[in-house]
Amino acid sequence: MTRDKTYNFSAGPSVLPDEVLHRAGKEISNYGGSGMSVMEMSHRSSVFQEIFDSVKVKLKSALSVPDSHEILFLQGGASLQFSMVPMNLMGENGSADYAVTGHFSNVAAREAKKYGTVNISASSEAEGHTYIPSQSQLVLDPGASYFYYCSNNTIYGTEWKYVPETGDVPLVCDMSSNILSKPIDVSKYGIIFAGAQKNMAPAGLTVVIIDKSLAGRELPYTPLMMGYKLMIDKDSMYNTPPCWNIYILSLVLDWLEEQGGVAGMEVLKSQKAAFVYDFLDNSRLFRSSVRPDSRSDMNITFHTGDPDLDAVFAKEAAARGLLNLKGHRLAGGLRASIYNAQPMEGVVALVEFMKEFEVRHHV
Amino acid sequence: MTRDKTYNFSAGPSVLPDEVLHRAGKEISNYGGSGMSVMEMSHRSSVFQEIFDSVKVKLKSALSVPDSHEILFLQGGASLQFSMVPMNLMGENGSADYAVTGHFSNVAAREAKKYGTVNISASSEAEGHTYIPSQSQLVLDPGASYFYYCSNNTIYGTEWKYVPETGDVPLVCDMSSNILSKPIDVSKYGIIFAGAQKNMAPAGLTVVIIDKSLAGRELPYTPLMMGYKLMIDKDSMYNTPPCWNIYILSLVLDWLEEQGGVAGMEVLKSQKAAFVYDFLDNSRLFRSSVRPDSRSDMNITFHTGDPDLDAVFAKEAAARGLLNLKGHRLAGGLRASIYNAQPMEGVVALVEFMKEFEVRHHV
Repeated sequence: MTRDKTYNFSAGPSVLPDEVLHRAGKEISNYGGSGMSVMEMSHRSSVFQEIFDSVKVKLKSALSVPDSHEILFLQGGASLQFSMVPMNLMGENGSADYAVTGHFSNVAAREAKKYGTVNISASSEAEGHTYIPSQSQLVLDPGASYFYYCSNNTIYGTEWKYVPETGDVPLVCDMSSNILSKPIDVSKYGIIFAGAQKNMAPAGLTVVIIDKSLAGRELPYTPLMMGYKLMIDKDSMYNTPPCWNIYILSLVLDWLEEQGGVAGMEVLKSQKAAFVYDFLDNSRLFRSSVRPDSRSDMNITFHTGDPDLDAVFAKEAAARGLLNLKGHRLAGGLRASIYNAQPMEGVVALVEFMKEFEVRHHV
Repeated sequence: MTRDKTYNFSAGPSVLPDEVLHRAGKEISNYGGSGMSVMEMSHRSSVFQEIFDSVKVKLKSALSVPDSHEILFLQGGASLQFSMVPMNLMGENGSADYAVTGHFSNVAAREAKKYGTVNISASSEAEGHTYIPSQSQLVLDPGASYFYYCSNNTIYGTEWKYVPETGDVPLVCDMSSNILSKPIDVSKYGIIFAGAQKNMAPAGLTVVIIDKSLAGRELPYTPLMMGYKLMIDKDSMYNTPPCWNIYILSLVLDWLEEQGGVAGMEVLKSQKAAFVYDFLDNSRLFRSSVRPDSRSDMNITFHTGDPDLDAVFAKEAAARGLLNLKGHRLAGGLRASIYNAQPMEGVVALVEFMKEFEVRHHV
């Protein structure tokens, strides 16, 4: 099976643009005439420094990051941020507000309890995380060190359609699965973080965008590598960063720019998501798993109501080159992740196959 | 300049075998007919699980890792291990012994002080880290939670030629810059860790080999992602691992096997290092920077005695395709890193140029 006949709906790591892989392959042994692969370069070399500086410029531009904020390239995934955020922001005997709208925000809240008091501002757990609470449902503590939420819940397929209003309490947001899919107002956030393996780059890179005024308050036992202040001071190069991942991000940002940037992505992702949800809302076999006002444009969760039939669908789809449509074990059912690099053609191919499957299996 | 005319002496990230880069480039868009790049695969997919399982088998075989030990694939570099080791092994009100033989062991010892009492068993700092202390020079505490050392000092160019005898005190070793260069007796170690970017894979992967009986004793505020026990229980996949780096390690281990494994590497590295040190010992211009009994076979530090002339040498060498010979800023002088993937031809080319330079500049 050649690559151009497959569409990869993996929730992460996930599809990268063909152009990015092509270019990376072309210069894998010799980047820009340097005689070295990007995988072989000293991170202190001028040739790598150029890549590093340019990716920061591109990301700053793509997301209109204000000068008040710094962009960091870290390791450890979003899961390490679950600890790094409270270790840096909670303060001694501090407290923080957490909105629990899925698996990862729940893990983050549990982890934060090691470092201070955690108030659950809202939880969608009782309804299987099938919706996002409204602003009026959030119980906010004006004395909290920060308010934490996850803007898109990869497993359950829900997405926040608004930015919480929390007054003077800094907003901390896990944007792992919807960063770069639309314009955002970075100035509203204290910290944005995202594992790169969905909309940005291969797994092993975590992007953090932090209001510099929040750095330097880490608890005394915070590991050296987990102090935001040191990472800001060392421009993410206290030790060797994940150079290859940063380079791939640079190529992805070039591709993003050619597609019209995050504004272009917003148009495209809305079209792609609407195409699938419209089908689901009119299907006699498939249905969306979440409340209409909370539907994610990145991860579309759906099901037939019959787990066995869901499994048959995922298997038959894979045989057609529509890969990785099985839902996460915590949510069951099916899931189509349609990140930036998923072309409209992939979504059309998916819906075509769903229609065909529906005809064969509707009783 | 084509790649085959250059030799990369970078201290890390550093040269990878040509064959590895060639194969990675060939299958970058479509691994094994999967229709996906390894960068795009779910880490939970069977196709990635096969890569993951095979790299563990290969590494276990290459280093003869006993069943008492587990191999982990983590992130954050050796620097995160500087915290992870004491957070897991120090215990409440515990103490540990550290041998300080270079920059990184010094940072590790400073970091460990956050979590307990640190005894400096030996330090080569007063003599500019130009030697490795002998067994009889080590001041050992039989009550220590562990003994820590760095087996090869990348910056200063020294290497431990013996494994410290510490009785019942577990040995913890940072092998970032000489792992896989020779056979080792893993059963002697409590923990071996290594950043991958020298002898193994691109930056962004940290390999840990841990005696499983040492896991599960982490301090209460240890971040979730920094508990060895969780990483063992989840087989390094609590969250998304750095999949691409693990895949490149797999290719490097295939290459290593073809070269005769670590036994073959030991023969080769001894030949390469002897070739350079023999020249240095007979040179009228260049000299080795460290004590003969402590010389590293991985990082050869040398100098002319004249910093300006050292700079001219590094610049002229680069113009000849002999890249990255400038010494680390902390040590000054020059440095040739000759890791596993550095071919004998690179070392011969280096010495040829040194001879030529000597003729031109010897006064």
